[in-house]
Amino acid sequence: MPTPVILDCDPGYDDVFAIWVAAAHPEIDLRAITTVAGNGTVEDTTRNARIACTVAGIQNVPIARGAAQPLAQPLKRADWIHGANALGGVDLPQPVVPLDDRSAVQLILDVLADAEEPVTVAATGPLTNIAHFLQVHPHSQPRIARIVWTGGTTGRGNVSPYGEFNASTDPEAADFIVKSGIPLTMVGLNITYQAQITREVRARIREIGTMTSLFGAALLERFSSTYDAYSDMPDGPLHDPIVVALIADPQVATTTRTRVDIELRGEHTRGATVIDLLELRNLPKNATVALELDVARFWDIVAAAVSSLN
Amino acid sequence: MPTPVILDCDPGYDDVFAIWVAAAHPEIDLRAITTVAGNGTVEDTTRNARIACTVAGIQNVPIARGAAQPLAQPLKRADWIHGANALGGVDLPQPVVPLDDRSAVQLILDVLADAEEPVTVAATGPLTNIAHFLQVHPHSQPRIARIVWTGGTTGRGNVSPYGEFNASTDPEAADFIVKSGIPLTMVGLNITYQAQITREVRARIREIGTMTSLFGAALLERFSSTYDAYSDMPDGPLHDPIVVALIADPQVATTTRTRVDIELRGEHTRGATVIDLLELRNLPKNATVALELDVARFWDIVAAAVSSLN
Amino acid sequence: MPTPVILDCDPGYDDVFAIWVAAAHPEIDLRAITTVAGNGTVEDTTRNARIACTVAGIQNVPIARGAAQPLAQPLKRADWIHGANALGGVDLPQPVVPLDDRSAVQLILDVLADAEEPVTVAATGPLTNIAHFLQVHPHSQPRIARIVWTGGTTGRGNVSPYGEFNASTDPEAADFIVKSGIPLTMVGLNITYQAQITREVRARIREIGTMTSLFGAALLERFSSTYDAYSDMPDGPLHDPIVVALIADPQVATTTRTRVDIELRGEHTRGATVIDLLELRNLPKNATVALELDVARFWDIVAAAVSSLN
Amino acid sequence: MPTPVILDCDPGYDDVFAIWVAAAHPEIDLRAITTVAGNGTVEDTTRNARIACTVAGIQNVPIARGAAQPLAQPLKRADWIHGANALGGVDLPQPVVPLDDRSAVQLILDVLADAEEPVTVAATGPLTNIAHFLQVHPHSQPRIARIVWTGGTTGRGNVSPYGEFNASTDPEAADFIVKSGIPLTMVGLNITYQAQITREVRARIREIGTMTSLFGAALLERFSSTYDAYSDMPDGPLHDPIVVALIADPQVATTTRTRVDIELRGEHTRGATVIDLLELRNLPKNATVALELDVARFWDIVAAAVSSLN
Repeated sequence: MPTPVILDCDPGYDDVFAIWVAAAHPEIDLRAITTVAGNGTVEDTTRNARIACTVAGIQNVPIARGAAQPLAQPLKRADWIHGANALGGVDLPQPVVPLDDRSAVQLILDVLADAEEPVTVAATGPLTNIAHFLQVHPHSQPRIARIVWTGGTTGRGNVSPYGEFNASTDPEAADFIVKSGIPLTMVGLNITYQAQITREVRARIREIGTMTSLFGAALLERFSSTYDAYSDMPDGPLHDPIVVALIADPQVATTTRTRVDIELRGEHTRGATVIDLLELRNLPKNATVALELDVARFWDIVAAAVSSLN
Repeated sequence: MPTPVILDCDPGYDDVFAIWVAAAHPEIDLRAITTVAGNGTVEDTTRNARIACTVAGIQNVPIARGAAQPLAQPLKRADWIHGANALGGVDLPQPVVPLDDRSAVQLILDVLADAEEPVTVAATGPLTNIAHFLQVHPHSQPRIARIVWTGGTTGRGNVSPYGEFNASTDPEAADFIVKSGIPLTMVGLNITYQAQITREVRARIREIGTMTSLFGAALLERFSSTYDAYSDMPDGPLHDPIVVALIADPQVATTTRTRVDIELRGEHTRGATVIDLLELRNLPKNATVALELDVARFWDIVAAAVSSLN
Repeated sequence: MPTPVILDCDPGYDDVFAIWVAAAHPEIDLRAITTVAGNGTVEDTTRNARIACTVAGIQNVPIARGAAQPLAQPLKRADWIHGANALGGVDLPQPVVPLDDRSAVQLILDVLADAEEPVTVAATGPLTNIAHFLQVHPHSQPRIARIVWTGGTTGRGNVSPYGEFNASTDPEAADFIVKSGIPLTMVGLNITYQAQITREVRARIREIGTMTSLFGAALLERFSSTYDAYSDMPDGPLHDPIVVALIADPQVATTTRTRVDIELRGEHTRGATVIDLLELRNLPKNATVALELDVARFWDIVAAAVSSLN
Repeated sequence: MPTPVILDCDPGYDDVFAIWVAAAHPEIDLRAITTVAGNGTVEDTTRNARIACTVAGIQNVPIARGAAQPLAQPLKRADWIHGANALGGVDLPQPVVPLDDRSAVQLILDVLADAEEPVTVAATGPLTNIAHFLQVHPHSQPRIARIVWTGGTTGRGNVSPYGEFNASTDPEAADFIVKSGIPLTMVGLNITYQAQITREVRARIREIGTMTSLFGAALLERFSSTYDAYSDMPDGPLHDPIVVALIADPQVATTTRTRVDIELRGEHTRGATVIDLLELRNLPKNATVALELDVARFWDIVAAAVSSLN
């Protein structure tokens, strides 16, 4: 039976593919999409989620807007990598899929209440919405089966020496989730950098030839060329679909049980995900961290999703 | 025209009087009571709010339960001063007044939406609920006229050398409110310690002779005797009704515009309300702080409220 | 037998009187004067110490220059209160008394080695020199009997809401001393503000009529008028001689054993001396804090010192 | 002309080789050895420095004892890797080379004063002594040409997720040095892990056949076997001689100018060396960081040193 999933996201190029895999994969039953400020403002990320569904013909999944800013600090958008509207440089169709009039917190509450079993949360942005939900509705926590999150790093970061974007955008939310006791799997830069959008990958997606494929290929071209200009990674990584792929297919990545702490107080390290792989600190293990990606298997999942949509 | 008010509280002996003044004062139009964990668990403070209304015959004010714990740390109840159930040592009637089935956040949202003008929030506990509300519904912020809060201190504290109970219980919430830009008036220990529950005060309340008066007198006796045992204040202060009195009657206290910052990071000072009365830091003024209480005027307001209820 | 004392100071108007009391009081055997950056640069405070000795005819006490800056942050001089050269606005004679060519740390080491018993340190500035000494020569710690320090506050501060000047200038040094285990007595703003330099005090010092008296009276006039302009204290307090007076005569102030912690990490409270007078934190007592000054007795000590010098 | 060098160390197996390279390399003029607490107590590291010189016949280099503990926290020795006496598990000869009776700080002062040009400091332990020296004698700072330090990491740590041993043992000292403005080269785990003590390396040192060679080979065997048991590095790295080799021969490693900050305040990251290789923070470059070791060249230098000693 497919796993019931809520996808909390901040599209962004790579979140679009996360939406598509979540909607298309037979092992996932996508119950709701909620949006959060991160790669762009929540207005942009919400519109982009609706565009992703409009292009791919995803019609029966409610989409609700969530938090406009992090728990305890101003939003710093990732516009250097996702462009001014978080899907920069690509012709965007009008979103036709409607916006649910509930808040993200309310939609999550309703989906959990209606579900016959605990629901998995795939989170591909800052964890603000999930923290809000748990703060306002702590009694509903057992209705969440687990959280699989694109965030953090076991090594160096991408917005500060030890800080990854999603974790650094809302460290207090990440800390709240880590301490909540909900089973957490972290998919960090250490593994997402393995999902490089090579020329072959881009050709493969484009050659599928559907409307989803063509729009997706345009996103990938843009994302890769931005990385090429901005970093020393000429292709760039497709971070976010990994969390959805990992929910659908545990074979797509290796993982380890370990200790994760979120640094809130550091002067130079705020937002660092401090992961004690060597067990130097003698603290209880509190999270699962993804390590090695089965790259071929991952791209097969992405391509299959694109192929099965509009 | 009376001021529309939402009372967010954690009863607690003194919160009970805040409820009564809010319900009885002709200059206040009490629209809702929301409860929060603080002096006791949210279950206790919610039951106690219902008891306060039941005793006094307050029937048309919706009461909704809010947060069970602070934003970012565990609850430390004030049971050394408010007893095991936050109204310790007093015979408590069964609460008859019903509990609204909405969450505190939802009730606040609905009250603000229905109000013809921005609503004043009287907050007599930790600011968790108000922070939750603003985090989940930032677009409703302009519907709050201002917040008047029992919390903080310009000098020394009552739970740590520089920490007052409400501020120290949820420093992140207090910080969020201070930074939100909503007009804030802080009623701290420096002024609430002026509202000593002297023998004369206790006699005055008891002699009113109504059911509310007798229950209130029992609360005051208990509160005073606890303070007598616990501190070197033989009478003890009635903190919380000051915020309601100040909304109803600005003459009840002097105030000053100043700078307030909440210390979140200190090793020995977390939760301190750092108030720059001498303008040493050259930071913009961001709050109003109450300084001197017109003690007689205050007790007149309290006594009038008790007299006008059941 | 008089108490052997090293005076570590940063003159500054009030330090000058500390030097005079230390040199003149029959219960004190002044072995050395060491200087530190604080009220002024160490060049200024060193010259001022030599001027204080030159004016008063103090010739046999070695004077050595110490630290030019705090352990872990830049120096912020108190020039708004002590003027550009730390004795601003007063005609200064040429210093004739020589400067010892040893460093402050070396002079302290030599004095302790030569003393027949442990030596008391009177510290009237930031504790940088003493921290340096103990860091480089930890084995000599038992040679220090105790430290009596002008610093900190039990209430509000004078450079930030909870920060006193000496403590805030070098919080790491204060923290090091508090944690060192050396018996420490803190003479904070709460008591030094009791030593107001009233018109009567100023007249009394001036009327002594010696060279020391005339120079001292000029310092007091200037200090008072600066306070009059700068603060709402029209006379201003003579902080520093209290520590020396308290070493010479324990009756000059009441004290209490309590807990002192130095806040190093606070965003708004760095440098606060967190003093747990109400024993709220259940931490071991680690210091003595002065509370109430016998004002008349104090000024008698100061006047007697001035009278007995040049 | 050889570079005048002061070697500040905490032997420790690998520091012994640093001493030998410093004494033997023709491009280095070793003026003094100072010892500090780190791998072991300062008593142990001082005795071990004397043993290293005794074995190798190094007789004209003064050795002085320095700090017994870090600036602001207790010492945590590396006894899990260096054994109970910091040279655990190896038969140790009696040290014959004498201990200078000056403190480390005084010896550094005297060496700098006597030198005809600024002197390079090779630091292979916590930076406590160097911080002490600069705090007490700031005017002598220009006499130090630069500091080359075994410490920190550009990636993960060896005592906490982001903390390397020398940096974490005395973070305040490291921070003081970084901020001092003295040219600093950091040789971190990222490069020292490239100096693996392979079976071939151990055989090469042993086969030299001198007394120094045999003692050194015993140290290497022990160090490797401890690493084999303790970590997943079967051979283990010889960290400390790299700094001396890099002073003698800049070709032994590549380096880059970058930004280094020491994290003092983090709850989970205290002691991290935060190195902004990607220039994400837009802060001025303040240090040189070593990146790639010429492994063959490095071992040639070590072997040549061992060959030329007793």
